[in-house]
Amino acid sequence: MPDKQAPPAGEEQIIVSAFAPLAAGWPGAFNLQDDCASIIPAPGHELIVKTDPLRAGVHFFADDAPEDIAWKALAVNVSDLAAKAARPLAYLLAASFPERPEPDWLRRFSTGLAVAQLTFGMTLIGGDTDRAAGPLSFAVTVFGETPVGRMVRRGAGQPGDLLYVSGTLGDAALGLDVRAGKVGPASGVTDAVHNEHLLRRYLRPQPRLGLKSALRNFARAAMDVSDGLGKDLGRMCRASECGAEVEIAELPVSPAFAAARVAADDSLLLQLAGSGDDYEILAAVSAENAGNFEAAARAGNVEVRRIGHLRPGNEVRFVAPGGSRVTIPSLGYDHF
Amino acid sequence: MPDKQAPPAGEEQIIVSAFAPLAAGWPGAFNLQDDCASIIPAPGHELIVKTDPLRAGVHFFADDAPEDIAWKALAVNVSDLAAKAARPLAYLLAASFPERPEPDWLRRFSTGLAVAQLTFGMTLIGGDTDRAAGPLSFAVTVFGETPVGRMVRRGAGQPGDLLYVSGTLGDAALGLDVRAGKVGPASGVTDAVHNEHLLRRYLRPQPRLGLKSALRNFARAAMDVSDGLGKDLGRMCRASECGAEVEIAELPVSPAFAAARVAADDSLLLQLAGSGDDYEILAAVSAENAGNFEAAARAGNVEVRRIGHLRPGNEVRFVAPGGSRVTIPSLGYDHF
Repeated sequence: MPDKQAPPAGEEQIIVSAFAPLAAGWPGAFNLQDDCASIIPAPGHELIVKTDPLRAGVHFFADDAPEDIAWKALAVNVSDLAAKAARPLAYLLAASFPERPEPDWLRRFSTGLAVAQLTFGMTLIGGDTDRAAGPLSFAVTVFGETPVGRMVRRGAGQPGDLLYVSGTLGDAALGLDVRAGKVGPASGVTDAVHNEHLLRRYLRPQPRLGLKSALRNFARAAMDVSDGLGKDLGRMCRASECGAEVEIAELPVSPAFAAARVAADDSLLLQLAGSGDDYEILAAVSAENAGNFEAAARAGNVEVRRIGHLRPGNEVRFVAPGGSRVTIPSLGYDHF
Repeated sequence: MPDKQAPPAGEEQIIVSAFAPLAAGWPGAFNLQDDCASIIPAPGHELIVKTDPLRAGVHFFADDAPEDIAWKALAVNVSDLAAKAARPLAYLLAASFPERPEPDWLRRFSTGLAVAQLTFGMTLIGGDTDRAAGPLSFAVTVFGETPVGRMVRRGAGQPGDLLYVSGTLGDAALGLDVRAGKVGPASGVTDAVHNEHLLRRYLRPQPRLGLKSALRNFARAAMDVSDGLGKDLGRMCRASECGAEVEIAELPVSPAFAAARVAADDSLLLQLAGSGDDYEILAAVSAENAGNFEAAARAGNVEVRRIGHLRPGNEVRFVAPGGSRVTIPSLGYDHF
């Protein structure tokens, strides 16, 4: 009996039906039919790369909407590109399913990726699909580009630089409580609009790509805030070999967060510095560039707030309105 | 109380101690202290990228030697670069630990990566380290480069092309049985040297980087054989829109495999076409380039064997010495 060439089955069927359409716009993706993909930065540009795994039970809930999971898998990686003032180009997706995904789930996941990649201006160019015991998980690798040497660094801040953050902080941590049905500060928020805001901030992080011009032209250092301001600012300070002072009263919060603060107490404001999943951008900007940075951020439709400054030494201080130093309850999320 | 800037702890300590030394040679890795890495192909070159996850219990055993796990994590990805005639440059490593790794394990893992990256000519440039329930797992993304447009494709084969494979097939599948302590064909192998050979072929796949010149200059199509020759040849045929005929008697096997075949029976030769983990290279070469291809492979110190040819149509035939067609028991490993 001859072996008829088998039709695509299993993982290849998943790739053909759910993923190959997302790669249609990139010749070097070879329709996801090759072992590798090819990518070349524009002349005078370099590639900026980043990989982040996401795992059900750690980074999302297995029963989150497939569209939300797809969005988050891309968004948390694109957030890093945004912080480096890199333009998103492409991504690789390695997906591990504990069992064969339902066709409807897969269709919705694929649609979610299509919407996310269109929003971020990038294309799927390769990856891997397998089945493995354990939680549903994804490893995403993103590729962006900047003019050569123009990636905004984490470790280039200098004492005296002003510290800015984009958007608002703390919403996603409250949104996680909402999503988990936990009793916490957010459970004191009775306004449905506020609750929806917190939940969406957790499920749908918004990479601040609109800050590209402001960061590239006017920031000395930048990084995204994903593990809590306290911890991530500590990282920027270590990499920049300096300290920092942050004015607690200047930390930007949403009306929904403010409502939770009323329902809880003032300590909530401190806790936000230790809570993760913000996916906002922390930038260090020289005093002389501050006006231009703010104007460029406005032009990019991203709100930024000055929250403090970098200092000599190696101390990271959080200061209350009266000038007293405040101990941050947690320095942010650490996996270990 | 001021918050003294905390020393690196947890994941950052792991990064600093185990991973940052591996990134020392790459300025765009920023000492693993930044969110992203930068990479730029040489003038006239493009980047070739690939991601593959590895998970304990699926791709390796959790109690394999850390050096072996490190080697395999890189090697299975580099094997894809080798098949595309790409020169390895760099890699990202995302590691998920179920619990904090022991210092000795981490030191050995790091040393294993150092040896592997030196062997393959590449540098760690970034990644992620976290803790997550579930098996120990890694997601590796590799970067190679080729002159623009010179990546060897999977889908460019043509009817009449000769089919070659590198090295020997089937060893790793037997080595997996040895490693798992299973009673199988390999358990009939009483020669310790043969057993060690099979085991090493499973634990230490050898990316065929020595084939680069032969593939780039003389192959029409190529891919690595990781899920079994039957399945992977089917993929090449689908991508190339043609069929193939393979002569079973020409499939290259090692002395250790031959010993297992004696201990078992002739069907073992057929089973190898359905067994995974070979990490050899399958290439389609036009008849006129065959001599040059073989000579270039010899110059690269890689054995290649002609096993058949591509044909019109869409049928993949395996043919026994007498000329009768043979049904392959399995068309290779499918995760679903």
